[in-house]
Amino acid sequence: MPEAPRDPLRALPKSIATVCLSGSLPDKLEAAASAGFQGVEIFEQDLLTHDGPPEGIREMAADLNLAITIFQPFRDFEAMPEAQRRRNMDRAERKFDVMQALGTDLVLVCSNTLPAALDDPARAAADLREMAERAAGRGLRVGYEALAWGRHVNRWRQAWDIVRRADHPALGLILDSFHTLSLGDTLDGLAAEVPGERIAFVQLADAPRLTMDVLGWSRHFRNFPGQGELDVPGFTRAVLEAGYRGPLSLEVFNDEFRAAPARRIARDGHRSLIWLDSVVAAPSVPAAPLPPPPALDGVEFLEFAVDEARGADLAAFLGTLGFRKAGQHRSKAVELWRQGGVNLVLNAEPDSAAAGHFELHGASVCATALRVDSAARALSRAEALLCSTWRERAGEGERSIPAVRAPDGTLILLVEPGARSIWESDFHLLPGEDGGALEGVDHVAHALSGGQMDGFVLFHRAVFGLEPGAPLDLPDPQGLVRSRAMADPAGRVRMPLNVSESRQTATGRFVSAIAGAGVHHVAFSTRDAAAFVAGRSAPMLEIPANYYEDLGARFGLADEELAALERGHLLYDGDGQGGAFVHAFTVSFEDRFFFEVVERHGGYDGYGAANAGVRMAAQARARPWMPGG
Amino acid sequence: MPEAPRDPLRALPKSIATVCLSGSLPDKLEAAASAGFQGVEIFEQDLLTHDGPPEGIREMAADLNLAITIFQPFRDFEAMPEAQRRRNMDRAERKFDVMQALGTDLVLVCSNTLPAALDDPARAAADLREMAERAAGRGLRVGYEALAWGRHVNRWRQAWDIVRRADHPALGLILDSFHTLSLGDTLDGLAAEVPGERIAFVQLADAPRLTMDVLGWSRHFRNFPGQGELDVPGFTRAVLEAGYRGPLSLEVFNDEFRAAPARRIARDGHRSLIWLDSVVAAPSVPAAPLPPPPALDGVEFLEFAVDEARGADLAAFLGTLGFRKAGQHRSKAVELWRQGGVNLVLNAEPDSAAAGHFELHGASVCATALRVDSAARALSRAEALLCSTWRERAGEGERSIPAVRAPDGTLILLVEPGARSIWESDFHLLPGEDGGALEGVDHVAHALSGGQMDGFVLFHRAVFGLEPGAPLDLPDPQGLVRSRAMADPAGRVRMPLNVSESRQTATGRFVSAIAGAGVHHVAFSTRDAAAFVAGRSAPMLEIPANYYEDLGARFGLADEELAALERGHLLYDGDGQGGAFVHAFTVSFEDRFFFEVVERHGGYDGYGAANAGVRMAAQARARPWMPGG
Repeated sequence: MPEAPRDPLRALPKSIATVCLSGSLPDKLEAAASAGFQGVEIFEQDLLTHDGPPEGIREMAADLNLAITIFQPFRDFEAMPEAQRRRNMDRAERKFDVMQALGTDLVLVCSNTLPAALDDPARAAADLREMAERAAGRGLRVGYEALAWGRHVNRWRQAWDIVRRADHPALGLILDSFHTLSLGDTLDGLAAEVPGERIAFVQLADAPRLTMDVLGWSRHFRNFPGQGELDVPGFTRAVLEAGYRGPLSLEVFNDEFRAAPARRIARDGHRSLIWLDSVVAAPSVPAAPLPPPPALDGVEFLEFAVDEARGADLAAFLGTLGFRKAGQHRSKAVELWRQGGVNLVLNAEPDSAAAGHFELHGASVCATALRVDSAARALSRAEALLCSTWRERAGEGERSIPAVRAPDGTLILLVEPGARSIWESDFHLLPGEDGGALEGVDHVAHALSGGQMDGFVLFHRAVFGLEPGAPLDLPDPQGLVRSRAMADPAGRVRMPLNVSESRQTATGRFVSAIAGAGVHHVAFSTRDAAAFVAGRSAPMLEIPANYYEDLGARFGLADEELAALERGHLLYDGDGQGGAFVHAFTVSFEDRFFFEVVERHGGYDGYGAANAGVRMAAQARARPWMPGG
Repeated sequence: MPEAPRDPLRALPKSIATVCLSGSLPDKLEAAASAGFQGVEIFEQDLLTHDGPPEGIREMAADLNLAITIFQPFRDFEAMPEAQRRRNMDRAERKFDVMQALGTDLVLVCSNTLPAALDDPARAAADLREMAERAAGRGLRVGYEALAWGRHVNRWRQAWDIVRRADHPALGLILDSFHTLSLGDTLDGLAAEVPGERIAFVQLADAPRLTMDVLGWSRHFRNFPGQGELDVPGFTRAVLEAGYRGPLSLEVFNDEFRAAPARRIARDGHRSLIWLDSVVAAPSVPAAPLPPPPALDGVEFLEFAVDEARGADLAAFLGTLGFRKAGQHRSKAVELWRQGGVNLVLNAEPDSAAAGHFELHGASVCATALRVDSAARALSRAEALLCSTWRERAGEGERSIPAVRAPDGTLILLVEPGARSIWESDFHLLPGEDGGALEGVDHVAHALSGGQMDGFVLFHRAVFGLEPGAPLDLPDPQGLVRSRAMADPAGRVRMPLNVSESRQTATGRFVSAIAGAGVHHVAFSTRDAAAFVAGRSAPMLEIPANYYEDLGARFGLADEELAALERGHLLYDGDGQGGAFVHAFTVSFEDRFFFEVVERHGGYDGYGAANAGVRMAAQARARPWMPGG
């Protein structure tokens, strides 16, 4: 893997705490450097467990061009009863020794959590002043941070009050987005109250909105900016407007990150800071020159990797849905299957990216082509966000479509409106009519395994400007499936992401079957799903009568409406505001992926999550489609 | 698997909600019946997703001897504005149709959660009265339950007030332990206020104490009685004292249970109710005749399954720790290795349970022998708790030791104080001295994979009377390990249980290596760990100097104390109340299991969890022991 470029976007150094990453301390440093960070916070526990002197870490960091931005945390120090005060000061001196060996000049003191701590800001200030005075004697500095669960000090204003009282040049305030935002607090007033140079350090973390004790929330569920639901951009803007110009440093405790490869998580972390830069437009700070995300105009095509046999089977399956072969590639073993506004490409070309995908994952979607206003700009944004890009070799006169590699290894092709369509330039188009019942691709649903959700959310949000919907839990008979749908504001590109901890759910089995994450189903939009199903021989998923019984009771549908839905194996959902959703599923192709037809009414913006339980139970019963079967 | 016996302990039928179990509705019914339940609650979503008429479920349940105790839930019914009232009554009539087809006479109405619901108990009572009147016309009944997150009604007293006002014989109160206890409420006053015959149904669930929103807590983290931290026994006692004599029914929403095999979870559920029966001694209800748990007097021996080659390697490893071969079995390829009060048995006998274990799991602990006051009573308790029991064939004149099979498939042998010890009856004892430095087995730590913790906790608690300690999170470099220690009140038998969601942690790798859960390390107690380590050639786990630096700062230990700890690779922990723990680890045997020596002082009751991060990071660096290496 090539070294990622150093962040070119802004002068503020980007840093990451070693606690974000898995592995040994050397592993963590290497991962941070490979992702392009300029600095690391050394989390004390990572140093304690390291078998080697702090000087070695200093050298390793220097070799990797990483500054050690801070040593943390120093706990339960200030405002203790007299007996502990002297001992705590000795403890501080020993940590100063470690800091000097590490070659960092800043230590993070977090607010005291001990029951014995005194509620006495003056005393806390006196203790911190003495610590700062001792630090200054060695050329070191102290930063003081309000922990959200501190015994007496848990708001930044309290911490600032103590720092102000202590009034020592070697003592500053540390701000952390999680500790502030998790309590519902904001940085309103920061710029007016705190001079920028008194802010010693800034730590950033996002998190999903959970209603739980803040300590447990903090220790297990933090994530990177853009992956959660907190206003980290507003927080960051406020510290920049206050004049802070030091490192922006990620400090995230997350069970999934701790169990994932350190390099992947480090790259996600750096990506999150680059994205954050681009959305933080502080008047006093030059805006980061990240190209804006593409304007999206839907899915131009989906490409399936197949071999000759699987390609014939898939073509037969598509035939039952009313697709017809509409083109043959001029130079490759690639077919275009089309119906109305939906293009599906079956790629069996031996010497291609698709062939590599087929080798690894079997028959499955290997590329999704999005219609974008500017492929070059989208590509340059993706590169700035540390994504790999790719371009397939093209025959003479054929179009070469640039692509970004998604976190599941599939390609996202970037198709611009061109003078001649790619179909005309690259394919022999075959005459014929398909009736045009499908308007386009409504959504492309991905199945992920445990621990992959946050990375996918960040990728699609940062690179393509898709926004995540609220997290949902879907009941598969073999376990819960967590779901979050990404979509652009106009709803032209929709990608539900489904993750299953269990390998027994349909989602989990899919991830096992293709040995990775990927597209699990594709939904096509139509104006009349009932007519679509009635006019096709496709193997639709059978829905039990009990479902329709209950549907009648829930929505007060007329008997004839219910009968029509039941006849077409159609599911129904309403949003309570006049929006409605009618949809039907095929059985799966080889237990790998399946298709859906959907009909949206009245601004319905969801995906029929209320029907997911019925769908997944029916899938558990249904046999996959077999050619001729 | 043989059918479990019907619960012989008490007249109250035992029931389980289908939502507790994974799979299709028929899978769930079969699992409930195979575990010995007398009834099931049909969770509506399970019926909706079932492909077949309710009458078929009625027949299947009848064939399995399962009563359908209730149909649930009917939501958002009472105290709605006028427009919805008529429609809700129609909805109720349609559900009555379903109930009659199912053959159950009781429906659960849970308190309304809708924003539109009116805060009007009189209206709620009028609605429920009308529903009950309609139900009664069909020979059906209605039960009303306060959901902990109901819009206006969330306490049982409010629900009872509404039921009392409605004053209809076909309307009763439903009580649920989670909804009551999760809000910090109790059933105090129930017997005085509510006649037993007005309690229509009782649902039971336990849960870990989490500080989070009660809806999320309820939907994901409930577990069976005895697995969590709520006072379900006190709750149950109160409903029995109020005169309730209907079913005790489990209703548990749990992400792990939903993803686990239904039969295992159903058996755990029934076990939890049998255990609950035994600890609920209501004056008005005959006590359940479950034999009391054994009085435990420590670990008599641990048995390792080996083959000849692995046995020789393990013997060599034990030799470095100062164990000596102290006996050879009279008729089998089984050796006794001993040091002081610790007996380790190496079983390489081809035609034995150990050989089967070795075949499946490789070299590992296949049996743990506990000293009990009465093996017969312990065995009969275990059988009543639906455990498999086992007895190895014995040679002439040899002792046959009865055993209970643990959830990991290993055996827990039950050794009584006998006139002749098993060593004298079954072994040729060899002369020699070992110095006697080890006093006994301090603890036996198990590694589990995700989803196994609750089942293990219940097994050891119910069968052996071990009590679970507080849950802890231990930081492995490759992910968090959740830990909960089981111990008898006297601390003679201690079993920490460690579970890793990640397969990359040492715990997760162990579970993969042995293809199952099992004993991951064994700790021996000694009076002087430093002397023990100094006098042995054992390959001890090296602890980094940084750890001792920090230890000095944390505990204010003298330099010579620190130096002595460091010399012996010893870890140190204090409990802040005068208790201290000194311990050291060996490297692992073939990356499978390892040993620990521990020294407890001043009533220290933990396991050095503060040192787990250092230990696990050191293990990630250390090379397993190799014979001659």
